[in-house]
Amino acid sequence: MPALRIAATDRSTRARAGVLRTAHGSVRTPAFVPLATTGSVRGLGPDEVAELGYEMVLGNTFHLFLRPGGELVERFGGLHRFMGWKRSIISDSGGFQVFSMGHGTVADEIKGSRSEAREGAILSIDEEGVRFRSYIDGSTRFLSPEISVAVQAQLHSDIVLAFDECTPFHVDREYTARSTERTHRWLARAIRWRAANPDPPDRRSLFYGIVQGGVHEDLRIGSTEAVVASGADGIAIGGSLGRDKAQMHEVVGWTTRELDRLAPERPRHLLGIGEIDDLIRGVELGIDTFDCAMPTRLARHGVALVPDPAARWRLAVDRPDCREDRAPLLEGCPCPACAGGLSRGYLHHLARTGELTGARLLTLHNLTFVAGVMERLRAALLDGRLAEVAAQLRAGD
Amino acid sequence: MPALRIAATDRSTRARAGVLRTAHGSVRTPAFVPLATTGSVRGLGPDEVAELGYEMVLGNTFHLFLRPGGELVERFGGLHRFMGWKRSIISDSGGFQVFSMGHGTVADEIKGSRSEAREGAILSIDEEGVRFRSYIDGSTRFLSPEISVAVQAQLHSDIVLAFDECTPFHVDREYTARSTERTHRWLARAIRWRAANPDPPDRRSLFYGIVQGGVHEDLRIGSTEAVVASGADGIAIGGSLGRDKAQMHEVVGWTTRELDRLAPERPRHLLGIGEIDDLIRGVELGIDTFDCAMPTRLARHGVALVPDPAARWRLAVDRPDCREDRAPLLEGCPCPACAGGLSRGYLHHLARTGELTGARLLTLHNLTFVAGVMERLRAALLDGRLAEVAAQLRAGD
Repeated sequence: MPALRIAATDRSTRARAGVLRTAHGSVRTPAFVPLATTGSVRGLGPDEVAELGYEMVLGNTFHLFLRPGGELVERFGGLHRFMGWKRSIISDSGGFQVFSMGHGTVADEIKGSRSEAREGAILSIDEEGVRFRSYIDGSTRFLSPEISVAVQAQLHSDIVLAFDECTPFHVDREYTARSTERTHRWLARAIRWRAANPDPPDRRSLFYGIVQGGVHEDLRIGSTEAVVASGADGIAIGGSLGRDKAQMHEVVGWTTRELDRLAPERPRHLLGIGEIDDLIRGVELGIDTFDCAMPTRLARHGVALVPDPAARWRLAVDRPDCREDRAPLLEGCPCPACAGGLSRGYLHHLARTGELTGARLLTLHNLTFVAGVMERLRAALLDGRLAEVAAQLRAGD
Repeated sequence: MPALRIAATDRSTRARAGVLRTAHGSVRTPAFVPLATTGSVRGLGPDEVAELGYEMVLGNTFHLFLRPGGELVERFGGLHRFMGWKRSIISDSGGFQVFSMGHGTVADEIKGSRSEAREGAILSIDEEGVRFRSYIDGSTRFLSPEISVAVQAQLHSDIVLAFDECTPFHVDREYTARSTERTHRWLARAIRWRAANPDPPDRRSLFYGIVQGGVHEDLRIGSTEAVVASGADGIAIGGSLGRDKAQMHEVVGWTTRELDRLAPERPRHLLGIGEIDDLIRGVELGIDTFDCAMPTRLARHGVALVPDPAARWRLAVDRPDCREDRAPLLEGCPCPACAGGLSRGYLHHLARTGELTGARLLTLHNLTFVAGVMERLRAALLDGRLAEVAAQLRAGD
């Protein structure tokens, strides 16, 4: 039985809606996946994340590997039990974070900075893996394709990602080609490790390979073919997606176009992308799941998501004109802040004061907003009205 | 009708249980009052605080006066509406914070430091009031008995406290005597301001005078008599309570003994005290309500309250032996962390990682723990079993 059951496809785009089955339940797609970076969605309890409608969160292998370590999480019965989350978990491979320490620019250009990872440093990269200095205690640590999937197995992750070299934007075609080849060899090693160390039958994880290839169409197509040929259950799209949104959409489209041809039934995850317009476009391009720090990180910086495309869907509540604003963040929004009658003025005050409560209320609001966008896109797909709803969302309706 | 209806008194102590009526509802006493310092119980939503069983929170006039200011809170319909809290609010007068900037030691000795207030500085103290530098923007601000109660009126506070000079511990009897006299003159000015600016009939606030007098029995008795004679609705006990817990209990007892003689029906609030053993003793001494930063501040520093008197009811979850501990903070505790199956090991990890979620879970746990202690004391009073239950609580049962 395939992991993804596709329930509807759009006539004029590559969009589809479906249900992704994992060992911990179902994820209705297209879906946004909030980050539980170090084992918690910052400021929220697991029940709250579920109440917002989310069916999967993402754990960061890199951070959890360094602290508290895969062995410890496994002794607690896996990440679900450790953090009290009963639904699905996807874990990234650590590739993005570890390579960001070295070149870092992918994040700055497209995905927003993840500065915490940069406090460490890469010591060496070779065919075997990556040696780096831990940002926590300065110790020397090593990640390889085998270690990455072994840690993800200790987390009892439902969706395991292959360890990849996350190719930066500023390198040339030759570097990108060689790096992509290495990512494919690392993919094969991850698959061999998993074959030799199978999951117990009651919690079989899904395994996604990562497509690299930078902004080069032939490399992206070749990488897509290689991941499909590897037999991976799903495909994640990673690496440099270009210098701007137009190029990002083109690069993502090369892979989903190939996947429609080669393996339409396999689930597709777009790594680290979550701006509202990118979610809409990503769904049209045939992406099933997305993860991104954006909604939760913006919240911690006092920014609420609102249906205002001209402002990139952002409202910085600490700006002066919010001070006396008695309106909610968003009329009709079901989040605890808006439904609870709290005003922009109150959130302005909390942001200025640096209160935990402010970060938490904005996190709840932003995740409610993103969940609502995804739910509207999914419902539109099931109703055959995607074009109409996507246009409404893009207009801020 | 008196504000406090006393439902039960203890035979062998001065303890009593009752119901305190305010413009926003009832507060079952004895009760602990969590701090909503700048308009939120840090990390929690107002509904959550209510769900924990709390019927009153304390807003800090000093902090709210500086930011966002009483005028703005009033334009939002008062502090209840501003922060979304429907139950009662007591506000302190700002005296403690403003005088802590100058001498500061009361807090260090007995009440735990409130360092945020010290970043400012006192510029002058005279009969008129206190001029000081704002810790927020360095501007010169002025607080007086009239301004303090005016700001509390703007907050729509249910229980308004008189502005007092919070006498430090290290001063001599003469200073304390003169300071206490000034506090009484300031009390009279606050009462005159309130008489000239009455609350609207639909939300009449209660007004508490503050007993000062340091560690001198005659001064405390005189101050208690003065506050009672002023006609204040209730009595708060403030200032230096001594060098250790034994002296604090003695000092508090002088006032409640006098109150039992002079005005037993008037509610009594003990300012800034909230250690578990002090709550038990305070109830025995006849205190009705307590506020303290302790349970919430400890939570933000990774400390859980547990029934372990030998450890002063504290468990620092970041200590090494919690790392692999799969037990909950407290077996049978109904808080979201314990009831949700989260372990000491997980909370250890969150504390080490500095995650917002950790501070929040410990805040919920600690406020649940304190609510449980107060509920047991109250139920014991109503059942005529205070001695037995107080002994159990002191033994960590």
